[in-house]
Amino acid sequence: MKFSQLYIGTNKIARTYDSVNATLLTKAGFIDQVMSGVYTYLPLGLRVLVKIEQIVREEMDTIGVEVLMPTLAPIDNWQQTGRLTRVSVLLKAMPANILAQKVHNQEYIVSPSHEEIVTPLVKQYIQSYKDIPCAFYQIQTKFRNEPRAKSGLLRGREFRMKDLYSFHASIDDFKKYYEQVKKVYMNVFSRLGIGADTLIALASGGDFTEEYSHEFQTRCETGEDTIFYAPKAAIAFNKEVAPARAQVPEVKQTEAMKVKTDVLGEGIVGVTELVRYLRIPVEKTTKTLLYETDDGRTIAAAIRGDYSINEYKLCRALKTKSVKFASNETVKRVTNAEAGYAGVLNLTGDVELYFDDSCQNRINFETGANRTNYHTINVNFERDLPEPRKFYDFKVAKIGDRYPETGEVYEAFQASEVGNIFALGSKYANDFGLVYRDDNGAAQEVIMGCYGIGTSRLMGVVVEKFHDEHGIVWPKSIAPYHVHLVSIGNAHKKAMAVYSALVSSGIEVIWDDRDESAGVKFTDYDLIGIPWRLVVSPKTGDQIEVKNRSENESKLFSINDIITKFKNE
Amino acid sequence: MKFSQLYIGTNKIARTYDSVNATLLTKAGFIDQVMSGVYTYLPLGLRVLVKIEQIVREEMDTIGVEVLMPTLAPIDNWQQTGRLTRVSVLLKAMPANILAQKVHNQEYIVSPSHEEIVTPLVKQYIQSYKDIPCAFYQIQTKFRNEPRAKSGLLRGREFRMKDLYSFHASIDDFKKYYEQVKKVYMNVFSRLGIGADTLIALASGGDFTEEYSHEFQTRCETGEDTIFYAPKAAIAFNKEVAPARAQVPEVKQTEAMKVKTDVLGEGIVGVTELVRYLRIPVEKTTKTLLYETDDGRTIAAAIRGDYSINEYKLCRALKTKSVKFASNETVKRVTNAEAGYAGVLNLTGDVELYFDDSCQNRINFETGANRTNYHTINVNFERDLPEPRKFYDFKVAKIGDRYPETGEVYEAFQASEVGNIFALGSKYANDFGLVYRDDNGAAQEVIMGCYGIGTSRLMGVVVEKFHDEHGIVWPKSIAPYHVHLVSIGNAHKKAMAVYSALVSSGIEVIWDDRDESAGVKFTDYDLIGIPWRLVVSPKTGDQIEVKNRSENESKLFSINDIITKFKNE
Repeated sequence: MKFSQLYIGTNKIARTYDSVNATLLTKAGFIDQVMSGVYTYLPLGLRVLVKIEQIVREEMDTIGVEVLMPTLAPIDNWQQTGRLTRVSVLLKAMPANILAQKVHNQEYIVSPSHEEIVTPLVKQYIQSYKDIPCAFYQIQTKFRNEPRAKSGLLRGREFRMKDLYSFHASIDDFKKYYEQVKKVYMNVFSRLGIGADTLIALASGGDFTEEYSHEFQTRCETGEDTIFYAPKAAIAFNKEVAPARAQVPEVKQTEAMKVKTDVLGEGIVGVTELVRYLRIPVEKTTKTLLYETDDGRTIAAAIRGDYSINEYKLCRALKTKSVKFASNETVKRVTNAEAGYAGVLNLTGDVELYFDDSCQNRINFETGANRTNYHTINVNFERDLPEPRKFYDFKVAKIGDRYPETGEVYEAFQASEVGNIFALGSKYANDFGLVYRDDNGAAQEVIMGCYGIGTSRLMGVVVEKFHDEHGIVWPKSIAPYHVHLVSIGNAHKKAMAVYSALVSSGIEVIWDDRDESAGVKFTDYDLIGIPWRLVVSPKTGDQIEVKNRSENESKLFSINDIITKFKNE
Repeated sequence: MKFSQLYIGTNKIARTYDSVNATLLTKAGFIDQVMSGVYTYLPLGLRVLVKIEQIVREEMDTIGVEVLMPTLAPIDNWQQTGRLTRVSVLLKAMPANILAQKVHNQEYIVSPSHEEIVTPLVKQYIQSYKDIPCAFYQIQTKFRNEPRAKSGLLRGREFRMKDLYSFHASIDDFKKYYEQVKKVYMNVFSRLGIGADTLIALASGGDFTEEYSHEFQTRCETGEDTIFYAPKAAIAFNKEVAPARAQVPEVKQTEAMKVKTDVLGEGIVGVTELVRYLRIPVEKTTKTLLYETDDGRTIAAAIRGDYSINEYKLCRALKTKSVKFASNETVKRVTNAEAGYAGVLNLTGDVELYFDDSCQNRINFETGANRTNYHTINVNFERDLPEPRKFYDFKVAKIGDRYPETGEVYEAFQASEVGNIFALGSKYANDFGLVYRDDNGAAQEVIMGCYGIGTSRLMGVVVEKFHDEHGIVWPKSIAPYHVHLVSIGNAHKKAMAVYSALVSSGIEVIWDDRDESAGVKFTDYDLIGIPWRLVVSPKTGDQIEVKNRSENESKLFSINDIITKFKNE
């Protein structure tokens, strides 16, 4: 391809966006933002996207068969699964004007996911145990009503995605397949050049399972997720679910018990303020939060002041589906105080009190006094209240925390999610009456799994990860071209010969044939980020200057050597 | 590919649809209807779609560069072109539930076409005359709020399409490119196996030009369009715009003039009824229809009773943008009668009277009497009213009509539209302020063209055209596989060897490896419609039975001969 035939070159006057990937991909002429979270893929960007999707396709073909489901889905199907009213990113389509309403007045779901299409589809084809397992995937455009879409290709309102759905006769068969998918996913990420930096982290399993789901997380300084990795145990967790033991104090403190006292602290409710006011270490403070569970219990959850409560973990600890903050009325009823002064002593009524294990091993700790404007200091288990029979873990993990199973301190780092896989159980199969007959002819539940890779998101992650101050540095497997030929000065004819030789050798080359200075062309080369730069100029004679995007040194080669080199690469 | 790994086979119990393509593609396991006009492409169907799109892509790459624009478009852009309220097939997307509204309450257009995206995009990159011409295309999913979607893949609410947009400095340059596109389009259709039966027909140019657009129409008995083709002139028209001269009477009739008479025919208003009542040939009757034009004129349009008025042609004849039927008040005012009795005599007021040329050369013709319940018979030009200075052509062409320029009788046939190209003029460029600077630095209008090929529609057209009573007959270039291997009886091992040999020779083969009877496999083969059937059975020894889908005879070949044959095909 000749640069002049792209029509769209780099766009260095483009605005700077909130994310590195949006800024670089826009300036380098790969994408154009149509509106927040919605992009056009320009010629170079589309080539990258297609290469990513082709790698995904080749790997998926080893474990499933490709289909293409529609974007528009019947409203009824979403009603049937209960997701019509519950999914907050759901968009619907309808006639856009009065004329259109007259023509055909129907509403459709604009699909963010395809369980509602694939399950009824498969139902037509699955009768007996002989028809499963089976697995279908597609690579398609998805739509999400994202609240914020400021991360470029990392979080689109319209984005490209591979989604795979599998159907099984038993949990065992599902689990076997699930492990197979993990391997295939890692193959994809290896081929994309991010394999070594990608690991599988446990995350929330969503609404339909108590098990963890698995996220494929790629180390990346600008990543949206924090991963807690325990190297000895070789296990990683998304911060959202990471089990954690507080690092200090590890053993019971040894200072002498002091007199328990209620201290007036008018209007002082936050931990930071409290620490300053009471002049105690934050580790001595205690937050007590009141919740109501979906099964009608009232809960007081106490945690050390330097931690926050992770509601996902709290729900798992309480064995309940969801919690919400207790109403002001409930707070007053059980604490006899305004909100902000709840504590672990003297709670009234039928409230259940739970302690996070960060509350362990403390002497003379503080807690809300259950009395408006008062805090109690120098509280001690056994003396002032019984030591809890059990401590729980419902803290948001933080740096320095330990993995409870091995006691090792977590390695924590930022990462970008590049894929996720999870169990759907029989939720959707049951919603649509999808069953199979076993060898006795009896109807049995079908077990489903679903597995996603955001292909446009991947393009963004790769740029976040592989760039320098001059521009993008593409891995070879998804670079728009492998070779970027630059002709300088009066070398058009020579460049044409080199270009033709490369093209006829099947090497992917883009030739910057524009009438621009060497400086402009080199800057554009660095910005675009193709692996190899070839320079043809009058001063290099028959030789061609070859430089890799990641290196500073260039070397001279003959065209034949270059062709041999790239064909063997 | 092994048949068993498709998971989804033929579906002979599937319902029969209104169209052949939907019925056959569903039964053969290529598509699944999710709802009217919305389909899933199953493994075989997706292969065909991808092959069609790859052919389109390869040809388009010779005249433009590929991008991928989003489905979601800003409402504002559609406001800016005036199409937001005017396009009756327009859909919009919005939050689907209350939760979603709270998350992010925004509406988007769900694009049926991309002028509103491509024009602002190109505006960022075009400054001077040096930057044009340029042309961008995409292959993408489109959405239309179709009133009826009963033609399978021929008319989808969600469908796949290639759309190309070109940008030019002058009409001349645009026209040159337009002719180039015609050639490239014909290359596409030739490669799809429908080239010989596809011609370019003139059609309405849409709202922004008085010129015709060009439709690529493929002869097909079940086609939705009627084409009028004049072989000598080598010109074809869509019925919607075909100029036409009535075949009879060609020369002035010679009977004697009779006495003009008003005949009472109470409540008789339709031509069929009138002919029966008055006992005159239909050619002697005259329909007079009253219209109001968008520039405020009142028009009486008279046409021979056996023709209908083509409003598109009428507008062109009247040099007006649009016409609508006159109100009952206007009809009464200008005819002094109830609606249904309008005629060409004694019209009152400022009504302008136009005659279609089918009214020429008649003696003793009938017309409405402009008097409720009365018809006037034996009317003659010159005696009863002046012969019009000019006759027009605003009739709907019908079989037997002549092409006015050459006088030859049209050949009329049904056809399916497979592509269309048209001039956009400067409409969208002006809407978005897209201009270029000429070599004097002055801003000049950019001329645009747009060019579509419905790729999923093409799949439907091919099936409508190429099928027999047993199933589909795919052209080789887009068949899902080239070879369909059938193993019968105890020949699994032998079939496996043949399959491996074909695969390793790079021949696209699907092997029906199921444990089914020969009858079931042969029936499925015919239904699916792959070009070559290979049968391996114990009784053929080392030989393999080879049969083409279009032929009845099979022949025996060795595997080596078969491989040689197919590799050279």
